Amino acid sequence: MLEGMQSKLLRLKENKAFEMFVISVIIISALEIGAKTYDLPPLAISATKALDVFITLFFLFEISVRFIAEPNKKRFFHSGWNVFDTLVVIVSLIPIQDSEMALLARLVRVFRVLRMVSIIPELRILINSLLKALPQLGYVVLLLFIIFYIYAAIGSFMFKDINPTLWGNIAISMLTLFRVMTFEDWTDVMYETMEVYPFSWSFYMTFIFFTAFAFLNMVIGIVLNVMEEEHAKAKNETDPEPTMKELQAEIAELKVLLQAQIESTSSKSS
Amino acid sequence: MLEGMQSKLLRLKENKAFEMFVISVIIISALEIGAKTYDLPPLAISATKALDVFITLFFLFEISVRFIAEPNKKRFFHSGWNVFDTLVVIVSLIPIQDSEMALLARLVRVFRVLRMVSIIPELRILINSLLKALPQLGYVVLLLFIIFYIYAAIGSFMFKDINPTLWGNIAISMLTLFRVMTFEDWTDVMYETMEVYPFSWSFYMTFIFFTAFAFLNMVIGIVLNVMEEEHAKAKNETDPEPTMKELQAEIAELKVLLQAQIESTSSKSS
Amino acid sequence: MLEGMQSKLLRLKENKAFEMFVISVIIISALEIGAKTYDLPPLAISATKALDVFITLFFLFEISVRFIAEPNKKRFFHSGWNVFDTLVVIVSLIPIQDSEMALLARLVRVFRVLRMVSIIPELRILINSLLKALPQLGYVVLLLFIIFYIYAAIGSFMFKDINPTLWGNIAISMLTLFRVMTFEDWTDVMYETMEVYPFSWSFYMTFIFFTAFAFLNMVIGIVLNVMEEEHAKAKNETDPEPTMKELQAEIAELKVLLQAQIESTSSKSS
Amino acid sequence: MLEGMQSKLLRLKENKAFEMFVISVIIISALEIGAKTYDLPPLAISATKALDVFITLFFLFEISVRFIAEPNKKRFFHSGWNVFDTLVVIVSLIPIQDSEMALLARLVRVFRVLRMVSIIPELRILINSLLKALPQLGYVVLLLFIIFYIYAAIGSFMFKDINPTLWGNIAISMLTLFRVMTFEDWTDVMYETMEVYPFSWSFYMTFIFFTAFAFLNMVIGIVLNVMEEEHAKAKNETDPEPTMKELQAEIAELKVLLQAQIESTSSKSS
Repeated sequence: MLEGMQSKLLRLKENKAFEMFVISVIIISALEIGAKTYDLPPLAISATKALDVFITLFFLFEISVRFIAEPNKKRFFHSGWNVFDTLVVIVSLIPIQDSEMALLARLVRVFRVLRMVSIIPELRILINSLLKALPQLGYVVLLLFIIFYIYAAIGSFMFKDINPTLWGNIAISMLTLFRVMTFEDWTDVMYETMEVYPFSWSFYMTFIFFTAFAFLNMVIGIVLNVMEEEHAKAKNETDPEPTMKELQAEIAELKVLLQAQIESTSSKSS
Repeated sequence: MLEGMQSKLLRLKENKAFEMFVISVIIISALEIGAKTYDLPPLAISATKALDVFITLFFLFEISVRFIAEPNKKRFFHSGWNVFDTLVVIVSLIPIQDSEMALLARLVRVFRVLRMVSIIPELRILINSLLKALPQLGYVVLLLFIIFYIYAAIGSFMFKDINPTLWGNIAISMLTLFRVMTFEDWTDVMYETMEVYPFSWSFYMTFIFFTAFAFLNMVIGIVLNVMEEEHAKAKNETDPEPTMKELQAEIAELKVLLQAQIESTSSKSS
Repeated sequence: MLEGMQSKLLRLKENKAFEMFVISVIIISALEIGAKTYDLPPLAISATKALDVFITLFFLFEISVRFIAEPNKKRFFHSGWNVFDTLVVIVSLIPIQDSEMALLARLVRVFRVLRMVSIIPELRILINSLLKALPQLGYVVLLLFIIFYIYAAIGSFMFKDINPTLWGNIAISMLTLFRVMTFEDWTDVMYETMEVYPFSWSFYMTFIFFTAFAFLNMVIGIVLNVMEEEHAKAKNETDPEPTMKELQAEIAELKVLLQAQIESTSSKSS
Repeated sequence: MLEGMQSKLLRLKENKAFEMFVISVIIISALEIGAKTYDLPPLAISATKALDVFITLFFLFEISVRFIAEPNKKRFFHSGWNVFDTLVVIVSLIPIQDSEMALLARLVRVFRVLRMVSIIPELRILINSLLKALPQLGYVVLLLFIIFYIYAAIGSFMFKDINPTLWGNIAISMLTLFRVMTFEDWTDVMYETMEVYPFSWSFYMTFIFFTAFAFLNMVIGIVLNVMEEEHAKAKNETDPEPTMKELQAEIAELKVLLQAQIESTSSKSS
């Protein structure tokens, strides 16, 4: 009986109309979240509450369908997207009374919008490829962090007394340096310290130079990476072009054949 | 008789001098629009009014010439540029008295400058290629929109009471986030919320990180796309380079010939 | 006698030590210009005056050497760099008394620093390649200009009464739009107009989108261009790699030979 | 005996656990530096002092181990990283009493964090490749400097009286121009001078254009460079693909063999 239900749910899950309906509910839940940021009349507020309950229940139903339809229950949680979907559904089931927690409940509901990503395959591929690119950038990010850390430490030691709001401790200094890196009113920060240390412009100039250079390196790294991948993909296609090496091997074979022929002719003539 | 006129107009339309004259009138209409933004003496104002009438009538004449000269009337409106030209001409024909509508009339005339794009083939190609690149970016734009939407909802829920001008509702929040993305006085926005939520810097940092990453991905996507197109174009040229595969096939043919020759020799000798 | 002098000067011009001395004088003239921006003691001021006279005379001498050493006087002025050098020298010879003109005289002397570019071949090549890349960008620049012009006209019509300093006429509006394009306090400009026209954010958003897109297109255009040039350069090198086509032709030749051989063998055997 | 010790230390140096311990100490020293930027209780301050002594002694020990373990003492100082490590250790050994110098002592300790780079091979490679890319950019940087110098001289001559804080002398002017290049409140700078010289916007526009163009050229230069290196690396791999030229040579060989065969056959038949 369970198996009959499983195959039925599988058919439901793979039904195009059902999928469209799921996407519609996700879009409605996104619109509802957006609507809640406006000041709504009391009637609309109670409408959104009812809608909330419906969406929560529907999502619970949909995740259950997907779970039951999956033949291998263990594999279900191997996909990060399924885990994410399940978590969002479970957390939104927890009843929240406390007004403090009401904000948290709202935030959890916001993450429902991310289900858009988990349900549209093209977006899932995009996110996966972004995540895959991250670890390869690891060392450049580490280098950037070391540059930030050193400059933040120097900045904090030197400029703490000038402006504790910007250079109070190493964490605040790193935030200030990120601001300098985005060129956001960075001259105000610089002019302030230049009044005490007239040569502190070199601190900012070298920092901008190093981070810009490391950043540029990072971008080039990504571009090269993407290109290599495309190249590798083109190579691994079915029915590939022969390589130069294969051509060379075939020409060599020809030569052997020809030489054998020459020898046989000359041996006959002798 | 109509056909005689049609061929005459076709010759007029394809006349280089006529084309130059059309471009000149478009440039004059552009200059007139620019001149109108200055405070002009009364004499100049009446001059621009006369000029306006002349330009409107000339554009009506030119579009009629193009329409009559076209043998297939239906195909005329298949080109988006023709539709655009016709719309601009028709709208500027509507007589406007109301002072409220005067502004609108002026705005319509501004779009006449866009006729520059529709008349210069190189610009038309440029615009077409820009438009063609858009749909391929669709999913990255959708992802960017989802990121914006989620952050705007969170921002609106959390920071609404801190500064309603920046975070009042989800639409305003998205505008504020776009501002953060362009690094425009983004630290002012951040410092304000950090006074209430000291860890809100992580909100901005992750947002900048995600959007920058998605944006970078978009740029790389466009570059790769353009390169592939160039590549494909080079391949489809007349008289193309033979592929490795064709070379391989020809070498294989040689081998067959050679083997046949060897066999015939050996059969004779035996 | 003139020819003897010409060959002597040619030797002087091509002398490495002389070249080094010319570069030194240019550097000294650059440093002098920098020094003049500081408040100098009277002694130093008279020193710079003497130095000025020396530099002017030396440059006159050097350009004369180059001119006389050139066998073909007409070709001398075919090089833009020679014309530039001559102009700078001649203009700095004009005696200036008027205090108003003193500023102009100073500015002309500043351009002497550009002689650094004309004397170092690597910089000359760099500038030439920059100039060569310009015309190819012509149509994208024209498109950008049209976008600016249309938005400036609309902005001037709509926002003139809100802030005449930013939107007074089409020229000022274009400057304001360039500011928006560089994201410099662009939200201040936007918030101001949004108070009157709440939907004017769409004006700025579309403008930023169009210009960013056109700009991106321009950058990609340059990159593709540079790559093609590198590619073409690699192809035109002496002793180039044979193309696929040449290989194909040679394999075809082999086949003809082999077939001739087969026929001769079979004719013998028959 | 010394040699026995040398081989022992070499084994210690190459011990994975020892290496991990060195990295841990570097991380601890980095965290300590960060902690010092906060206001610490007296107990923590004395703890950091003790920690400081330990770290200094440990680094001294570690550099000694590396020095003694090196068979060729001269080669030890050929590596810039070893020289850097030794300098950092020696400077932090100097006892400092003066409160003025205390700041300097702190700064030297900050550079200990850079030892992270010298100990992790991947970061060392990254830094080396960054340093290697620098000289190739030499001429573009020189060109950028000349552009800055000329505009700073002009700016200083023209705008000195308008705002000496921004245009007081050529050095301050160059800082102001760097600010303009980063688009940081550059319109404030421009509007100020436009009140006196209404056409001074052309000064800023051309400056932005030239620097942006030179900068773009620099970026493209780096990208092309990196690509060529990758290309060259791919070519120099062991067991490389044969070039078109090698294939051509082998086909030519075939032809010679075939022609020899044809001649021998025809000579026999005659």
